[in-house]
Amino acid sequence: MKTQVAIIGAGPSGLLLGQLLAVAGIDNVILERRSGDYVLSRIRAGVLEQGTVDLLREAGVDDNLNAHGLIHDGFDIAFNGERVRIDLAGLTGGKHVTVYGQTEVTRDLMNAREAIGATTFYEADKVKPHAIDTDSPYVTFNHKGQKYRLDCAYVAGCDGFHGVSRTCIPEDRLRIFEREYPLGWLGVLSDTPPVSDELIYATHDRGFAMCSMRSPTRSRYYIQVPDTESPDNWSDEAFWAELKRRLPEAVAENLVTGPSIEKSVAPLRSFVAEPMQHGRLILLGDAAHIVPPTGAKGLNLAISDVNTAYRLFRAIYDRGRTDLLERYSATCLSRVWKTERFSWWMTTNLHKFSATEDFDTRMQQAELGYYLGSEAGRATIAENYVGLPFAELAG
Amino acid sequence: MKTQVAIIGAGPSGLLLGQLLAVAGIDNVILERRSGDYVLSRIRAGVLEQGTVDLLREAGVDDNLNAHGLIHDGFDIAFNGERVRIDLAGLTGGKHVTVYGQTEVTRDLMNAREAIGATTFYEADKVKPHAIDTDSPYVTFNHKGQKYRLDCAYVAGCDGFHGVSRTCIPEDRLRIFEREYPLGWLGVLSDTPPVSDELIYATHDRGFAMCSMRSPTRSRYYIQVPDTESPDNWSDEAFWAELKRRLPEAVAENLVTGPSIEKSVAPLRSFVAEPMQHGRLILLGDAAHIVPPTGAKGLNLAISDVNTAYRLFRAIYDRGRTDLLERYSATCLSRVWKTERFSWWMTTNLHKFSATEDFDTRMQQAELGYYLGSEAGRATIAENYVGLPFAELAG
Repeated sequence: MKTQVAIIGAGPSGLLLGQLLAVAGIDNVILERRSGDYVLSRIRAGVLEQGTVDLLREAGVDDNLNAHGLIHDGFDIAFNGERVRIDLAGLTGGKHVTVYGQTEVTRDLMNAREAIGATTFYEADKVKPHAIDTDSPYVTFNHKGQKYRLDCAYVAGCDGFHGVSRTCIPEDRLRIFEREYPLGWLGVLSDTPPVSDELIYATHDRGFAMCSMRSPTRSRYYIQVPDTESPDNWSDEAFWAELKRRLPEAVAENLVTGPSIEKSVAPLRSFVAEPMQHGRLILLGDAAHIVPPTGAKGLNLAISDVNTAYRLFRAIYDRGRTDLLERYSATCLSRVWKTERFSWWMTTNLHKFSATEDFDTRMQQAELGYYLGSEAGRATIAENYVGLPFAELAG
Repeated sequence: MKTQVAIIGAGPSGLLLGQLLAVAGIDNVILERRSGDYVLSRIRAGVLEQGTVDLLREAGVDDNLNAHGLIHDGFDIAFNGERVRIDLAGLTGGKHVTVYGQTEVTRDLMNAREAIGATTFYEADKVKPHAIDTDSPYVTFNHKGQKYRLDCAYVAGCDGFHGVSRTCIPEDRLRIFEREYPLGWLGVLSDTPPVSDELIYATHDRGFAMCSMRSPTRSRYYIQVPDTESPDNWSDEAFWAELKRRLPEAVAENLVTGPSIEKSVAPLRSFVAEPMQHGRLILLGDAAHIVPPTGAKGLNLAISDVNTAYRLFRAIYDRGRTDLLERYSATCLSRVWKTERFSWWMTTNLHKFSATEDFDTRMQQAELGYYLGSEAGRATIAENYVGLPFAELAG
């Protein structure tokens, strides 16, 4: 079997890269270890940057997004008992974010891929890239008991943090930068109307809390917990009670509770692997970097890698610019580190890390106090939240 | 002996408070442990915020400042081999800073005090406030072999970090917040023309460096050194050579060197004592808080306390608002913490702390890269550098 780009992973980044390439006439095959239903069952982010929406639009996968995506012109940060609105539109010259679940993005992309008849192997087992530092890489895998070999020109690793792709880069070439935060987010999904039209990030002496949503009838709420916490320790009642304690009173009063349809603890971690390219292999999204969820950057950052990879493959196949391959990593990383910074800043300043008041906790208070109280400060939050411009491949 | 406000310390904050009060008809006496010449020999900051200049003007002590102060509309940060200008005027609606040495400010204030014939005891020994938690505090001291008692209504502690004033607040009432940075600034003063019309803060792999000035013919340069470093280890030649290595090439080429007329190592520390008032004693400036020098906030923050103290005494003596005394601390501290934050941010992001590249050093690079590359980011730096608005005593 032969293709131009072998894509490992059928999450939103693998699927979107595949769709963009297919529309541009660049042949690709996607190999996914799990079933399509399993991929869709993963509950993830729900806030899309304008650039993410634009790229979905460029791929022609925006019908449902246009119909059901919720435009948000701002969000709130609750701090010291006050709600400060970050006026995204006003502070960025009219930009906004779109609330639309990652599950929906993924489903739309799966349907689009099926409609154009591009090849995807779900439940592909033992996927393994080979000869990535030659001009003739290939990927082997098992599928329904049969062994396959997929010859290709390039391998795109969209297989997440635990995927095989990153491990194909020799250890002595790979540098890892990471930070683990001693906390997690206990998240509950419920079919209840969101407590507010816009998202609320709430600091509180008992720990961070967040009010998010997926649609006008489906809410997503989070509370900060220790990273060792199990969701089994939390009844729905206990979750709602703790959430209410951490929200401004006027918000808590309006909270509509209901049975959870999903409840899980997500760890908070910052992680970057450099470089993001080795030979004919490139890494995208969580395969190369993880951000903590504060600021809603995970999916968006993956899609910004997709944008760079897509422009790269167009340059290669339309204009023979194979020389640009080696610029892929630095191009992506320039934006990755800016986004890691924002996610780290939001995480560091919105969570409760210590019961003791000391210089660090005062600096945390001062950071929030200053940035929320200053228009320039709020503008820095806003321009990062709506998404910094995509990085451009020079040349 | 009797006065309304006993001021301990004849540095710029004690002298300015005394001048403002005297002009307003509020009697005050200043007690200073050192001689006037000693006070003038201390080489300190040289960048004045607009609010500092305005308050000197309000005290009528601005003739020399008007004649010799240098208006600076911007400064440069050198980062990754580039010089990024912080356009203070453009980013803050026309605000600027004034370069005028602390020594000159102090001398102008001393002369003004002498001109109005207000009482100052230099070389006052064993200065000690008493009964500050009563309505009849007093200060005892020795002067030229004689013992004195100064009865007063209020005591203003302007006697710096090592002064007696802060120690008068009972230990169980006082909370200390501090951060020591494992580095110092080796500073050289020289009668050479400044290398640039504006200040340059330079990051470098060998450590931070800074080009400042006092006048068109007097320069002040700094290089980051370990906090254990002695100035005796540095010949002038060694200093100039190391400074040149850390500056952008085009700057280093133009550096005019000459004999140092002062050379010293200053430690870098953040320190805040809370509260800043106890009974009839209030603390101002370094007596209550220290900032590291990065960002030039030490003198300006002291002067912002002077502004609050002056408004307080006016409210008390003009309008009988003795109730405002207990708001002094919170009023000052709201601005103190914002300024501590900026000084900490500048210090943390401009210095070299570690030889190893890790997540922290990448965040440091990302912070500078983002803030210097974004107009909103530069605006946050600019509005802090020119000085946030003075805090207002509510009521």
